[in-house]
Amino acid sequence: MQRTRLDTARIRAARRVIDPVFLDTPLYRCEALEPHLGCAVSVKLETANPVRSFKARGTEVVATALAAHGPRAVVCASAGNLGQALAWSGRARGLDVTVVASRSATAAKLDRIRALGAKLELVDGDHESARERAAALARRDGVRLVEDSLDLETCEGAATVGLELLGSAAPFDAVLIALGGGALATGIGHVLKEAAPRTEVICVQPLGAPAMTRSWHERRVVTTDATDTIADGVAGRYPIPEVLDDLLLVADDAVLVREESIVAGMRLLLDHAGLVVEPSAALGVAAVLEDRERFAGRHVVTVVCGGNVDMDTYRRWVGTTAG
Amino acid sequence: MQRTRLDTARIRAARRVIDPVFLDTPLYRCEALEPHLGCAVSVKLETANPVRSFKARGTEVVATALAAHGPRAVVCASAGNLGQALAWSGRARGLDVTVVASRSATAAKLDRIRALGAKLELVDGDHESARERAAALARRDGVRLVEDSLDLETCEGAATVGLELLGSAAPFDAVLIALGGGALATGIGHVLKEAAPRTEVICVQPLGAPAMTRSWHERRVVTTDATDTIADGVAGRYPIPEVLDDLLLVADDAVLVREESIVAGMRLLLDHAGLVVEPSAALGVAAVLEDRERFAGRHVVTVVCGGNVDMDTYRRWVGTTAG
Repeated sequence: MQRTRLDTARIRAARRVIDPVFLDTPLYRCEALEPHLGCAVSVKLETANPVRSFKARGTEVVATALAAHGPRAVVCASAGNLGQALAWSGRARGLDVTVVASRSATAAKLDRIRALGAKLELVDGDHESARERAAALARRDGVRLVEDSLDLETCEGAATVGLELLGSAAPFDAVLIALGGGALATGIGHVLKEAAPRTEVICVQPLGAPAMTRSWHERRVVTTDATDTIADGVAGRYPIPEVLDDLLLVADDAVLVREESIVAGMRLLLDHAGLVVEPSAALGVAAVLEDRERFAGRHVVTVVCGGNVDMDTYRRWVGTTAG
Repeated sequence: MQRTRLDTARIRAARRVIDPVFLDTPLYRCEALEPHLGCAVSVKLETANPVRSFKARGTEVVATALAAHGPRAVVCASAGNLGQALAWSGRARGLDVTVVASRSATAAKLDRIRALGAKLELVDGDHESARERAAALARRDGVRLVEDSLDLETCEGAATVGLELLGSAAPFDAVLIALGGGALATGIGHVLKEAAPRTEVICVQPLGAPAMTRSWHERRVVTTDATDTIADGVAGRYPIPEVLDDLLLVADDAVLVREESIVAGMRLLLDHAGLVVEPSAALGVAAVLEDRERFAGRHVVTVVCGGNVDMDTYRRWVGTTAG
């Protein structure tokens, strides 16, 4: 395959600096889900850790390098999970962490960022406004800016999930990955396309935040004016060209799913797998629900990438009667 | 310490025959829970596996031995989790599994036992009636009876959880363990008392099913006429003398908690850790809620031992508004 920006030796090295609490996460069949989806389903569970998302795999790599020989201050924009992870990794190493987020971000994520001791700056507008503000802060103060999906540490940290999928006894026919900025998809995709090229790498994004998926299909950056989705973790509008280039090399497909499918996916994961997941983490199940024929009889693995939700909102989504 | 029936070399050997999907489960701090409990809290999460409880650690040991040189048929009584685990382990090895359960057992557990291909026999009465019937079946048909907590495989399989607690970087002041038949408590207790004797081993049982706890305090078997608790996984009435003897050697305390504390514990674990747990798995948090002073400022680990619930009932327990 043509080379992405990622490097497998560095991905393997990343495993050695990431706190083990974030590694070797559960990977198991959920047979109780399968009658509802018509295919064999395994989950790779990234929520059972101190920040309840996969993002710390990347921030551990970032923070380790900074603690060793970088500046002691770091800033990032975040919809909430990257910020929480950077706050955790930075606190463990005595770094000065600033997170910029949209005022409309999920409150539970913002609360955790504050609780972990990071400085939180809220901006009007959406995640793209937060990205602009974080970049401006970094320039003004001369501190390290962590750019999710652009910075290789975030992609290669996320790629360690891919190494763990390779280690599984059962080969998967397809892996379903939430697509936002692209770190998780390019990370896992890089590893799988190199070592298990027959496993289909399928990225899933909400119809209400389709910029990267459209860009992948058109093979050029396509931006959108707005997003409209409950999947806050993947709601970007400005795909990063370098990340798109990588994604074009490693993704076999990118699909868009409806909001009602995301909610149905969250409910299925709760009712039949006992998993509380945020909307982005239900995208894979949503993709199966929208195209059962494609997956019928195959074995898919879906990466349950995060579980940070506002509980009142979550209860509204999943309802009060069993599905 | 005086010797229990368990053997550490055999416990280490058990790790080699248990399917890795049940081993090295997540162990992590849940800081979001801590303001609500007044102490540092880590969870050992035994729900993220194909049977959503720790019980397969034991049934893997049982089934491995049977597949190698035992009879091909096996029967057990179960409130649901052991039966599900034995069905899983038996199916993987071509064994003929029969599970006897109370007609009033949690429906979701019974459904999974059937789905995993085991023969399920339901009896009137409670778990003790199921135990009698399973023993009668085993005698009649000459098949192996698996007796939870009495059979060393079930204790030593469960004890592998203890080995994993020892491997943790942070030493724990206390470990909180759901107490039912006693396999989990004697298993973890054996390992900790041998290798980390200063960690307090605290067993937790519902006030509505207090037989083993009363027995521990009185140092003799005390039975009860009935149980009255939502914690179906620990609702026994006839403690097993050999298991009590072991428990007397390894437990530092055994406490009883109220039903409303169990429900409050389930709600806290959902709202602040994103974990769907069955009532037995909330006993540890319930114990902290009932005696905050005892745990104030200490670091406790609670074993989240199972997550199989009927979702309608679970939704009633945890309510529709955030806690």
